[in-house]
Amino acid sequence: MVAPLKVGIAGLGTVGADVVRLIEAQGTALAARCGRGIRVVAVTARSKAKKRDLDLRGVSWAKSALDLANDANVDCFVELMGGSGDPALSAIDAALKSGKSVVTANKALIAKHGLRLAKSAEAHGGALNFEAAVGAAIPVVKTLREGLAGTEVNRVYGILNGTCNYILTRMEQEGLSFAECLKDAQRLGYAEADPSFDVDGHDTAQKLAILASLAFGTRVAQSAVYVEGISSIAPADLRAAEDLGYRVKLLGVAVRTPKGIEQRVHPTMVPKSSSIAQVMGVTNAVTIDGEGFPPITLVGPGAGGAATASAVVADIADVARGIRAKPFGRPVARLRATKKAPMERHEGGYYMRLMARDLAGTAATIATRLAEQKISIESIVQRHAEGVDENGMPRKASQVPVILVTYATHEDAVRRALKAVQHDKVISGRPQLIRIEKN
Amino acid sequence: MVAPLKVGIAGLGTVGADVVRLIEAQGTALAARCGRGIRVVAVTARSKAKKRDLDLRGVSWAKSALDLANDANVDCFVELMGGSGDPALSAIDAALKSGKSVVTANKALIAKHGLRLAKSAEAHGGALNFEAAVGAAIPVVKTLREGLAGTEVNRVYGILNGTCNYILTRMEQEGLSFAECLKDAQRLGYAEADPSFDVDGHDTAQKLAILASLAFGTRVAQSAVYVEGISSIAPADLRAAEDLGYRVKLLGVAVRTPKGIEQRVHPTMVPKSSSIAQVMGVTNAVTIDGEGFPPITLVGPGAGGAATASAVVADIADVARGIRAKPFGRPVARLRATKKAPMERHEGGYYMRLMARDLAGTAATIATRLAEQKISIESIVQRHAEGVDENGMPRKASQVPVILVTYATHEDAVRRALKAVQHDKVISGRPQLIRIEKN
Repeated sequence: MVAPLKVGIAGLGTVGADVVRLIEAQGTALAARCGRGIRVVAVTARSKAKKRDLDLRGVSWAKSALDLANDANVDCFVELMGGSGDPALSAIDAALKSGKSVVTANKALIAKHGLRLAKSAEAHGGALNFEAAVGAAIPVVKTLREGLAGTEVNRVYGILNGTCNYILTRMEQEGLSFAECLKDAQRLGYAEADPSFDVDGHDTAQKLAILASLAFGTRVAQSAVYVEGISSIAPADLRAAEDLGYRVKLLGVAVRTPKGIEQRVHPTMVPKSSSIAQVMGVTNAVTIDGEGFPPITLVGPGAGGAATASAVVADIADVARGIRAKPFGRPVARLRATKKAPMERHEGGYYMRLMARDLAGTAATIATRLAEQKISIESIVQRHAEGVDENGMPRKASQVPVILVTYATHEDAVRRALKAVQHDKVISGRPQLIRIEKN
Repeated sequence: MVAPLKVGIAGLGTVGADVVRLIEAQGTALAARCGRGIRVVAVTARSKAKKRDLDLRGVSWAKSALDLANDANVDCFVELMGGSGDPALSAIDAALKSGKSVVTANKALIAKHGLRLAKSAEAHGGALNFEAAVGAAIPVVKTLREGLAGTEVNRVYGILNGTCNYILTRMEQEGLSFAECLKDAQRLGYAEADPSFDVDGHDTAQKLAILASLAFGTRVAQSAVYVEGISSIAPADLRAAEDLGYRVKLLGVAVRTPKGIEQRVHPTMVPKSSSIAQVMGVTNAVTIDGEGFPPITLVGPGAGGAATASAVVADIADVARGIRAKPFGRPVARLRATKKAPMERHEGGYYMRLMARDLAGTAATIATRLAEQKISIESIVQRHAEGVDENGMPRKASQVPVILVTYATHEDAVRRALKAVQHDKVISGRPQLIRIEKN
């Protein structure tokens, strides 16, 4: 029997502690699977004194992540500290340079420095595995990297942030406002005190950038991702979506177009019958369109200690079995530069909700402005309910929502038409615009 | 650069031809991913003369699968002929014995001979990959074998047969009978001329036996699978399911119980809100319950040339990259014998539809018989609609369906209660019994 794989873990928060427990509990099964044991030999964490309910007898404590990464007794360095910079970055750097394999759950770091680190892993012979960085236990990295190795991927999209999906689900099911649901999510621990990283779409963008690289063989480029968050979504949008046969989800979408790779994160209307529309609460899901056959959808928990630890331990097991996949599926030198498809040229259907200042003529004005941009309207509805008096007559002073759905058109045409409508002063406030994604 | 992997393909039907095309079309990407090229060097098929629209210049033709398996110029033998016995079996046998790696899409053969072949693969150093045998392009084998390597699996269940799901979907959505939908499925090529292998559940049972082995580290045991097909399902059952908040799916379920591993294939009521209930038409899906976190569900095409070829080529790519996973996740010697949990001890909720001979007293009799077996009733409904005359009075001669849902109980208790009810002569015909699976 080969000597056991000696693992060093930097970071003993929820995930780190669960990884230690899982390696212990699954010891026999892991040894059978890998043909060798897996043993945690060293750890490091901010506080050694903290109560952790972990049996760490025989495990040495490193003074820092960097020390742990340089520990000659460690074969596999597991980074679970988080943060896109130091100390995580220099520790991973050092571990790879010494020929160690690295397993990390750190999406921010991989999105930002993944290419450089992958190159170092290739050069020094170690693995760089990051299944847990996207969708926790959902095996989406492995699926794109290995399971669909022979398949041309045309599109990958998904619900990659549980906080946003939780908020949108509550808003839809209970008719609550964004602010109310956010407060609840914070109370339940689904959202951070500063929720902007999640609700503004940046967390999704980092994960999407990683998936796009794996799917298309392009260099990770977070800066190429167009990002819009969910804070502008109103209960009225969710009601309208319901009427139109859609649900609103914050999607990350990466798609091959004739103009390049389009990468975008924004609230999206998806057909109620699609797999992705069924995904509720904090659950994540990724759909992959492979050439020549119907889409594959992977659904599951996108966060949580046990789910993240499951992916981390699977990555460690791959290291133990001697598997050295290219971190991004192909050698870094073979990854193509991302040709960014400009968002203005995005093509698709659009949902718009406009507040008409008065009824007479508004619809006609809007329709004219859209027609000038050659945008075809699939449906237009003026909702009177909120704008009528007791006799059913329109209130003069009231604002009446006009809800429009267009056939496929270009983003810049839509922007120009809306600008013209605003200039016409027939609407008030900011127009709401939600892109439609067909399955 | 390492020499290309030389592939021999036995069987050039839809899948085989698609594999040849995919390896050609994805040549550059595959070489980048694997660090070496993949080249089809030899093939064999029943008829060499058949028109195939394939460029086979430079590819040699073997006289038989066995010859191809013994061809010293072949590194990786790909079996796409089908059939659980010869010629596929002896060819795979020969290929493994000569140290070659084998890739196959043949579920029947793997369910029946997988263990012996896996042992041979281990002994001679080749891989034995069969991702395509279950769920085509859905990476469920890889997920259980590698992606959840560190996770204790408690249950795996799924829709593993597209024919059955197509029939049940049409029956549900259009109120049609099983016979009508089967005829349509045959006309559309979704069902064989002899549909019994699919509709009686045997195809699902073979796939389930493979998944159970991967999930629980037990020896593949198709004979341990309890099997019931869908031919007894009536539109009335689907209407009742709808009313009760369920859908009916043919599920394969493998679950760890205190009494052993329960493996069963039968029509199942699943909550309408579950991921598996959303799966319509020929689509397949597998849900995996890992210890400590919410289930993971993989959804996608379970059949078709391109989808199957995608999995076959991914398996070939793993061979090219030098990956030699244990075929069933663990060494064959470490797989435990399946301790079969007897179906009589199955525990769960039950749906029953009985035809009451007359109304007076029937419900009371049924309730008494269930109570005698300590079965608690969650709901009981007598449907009058079909049994009333023009004045709304019950027709004397008519049969009135009684629909019952029980709380969790044991299979043998249910069987005893139904036997007693039949003995009481208050119902006519065969009682319908459908098990309920909670998510």
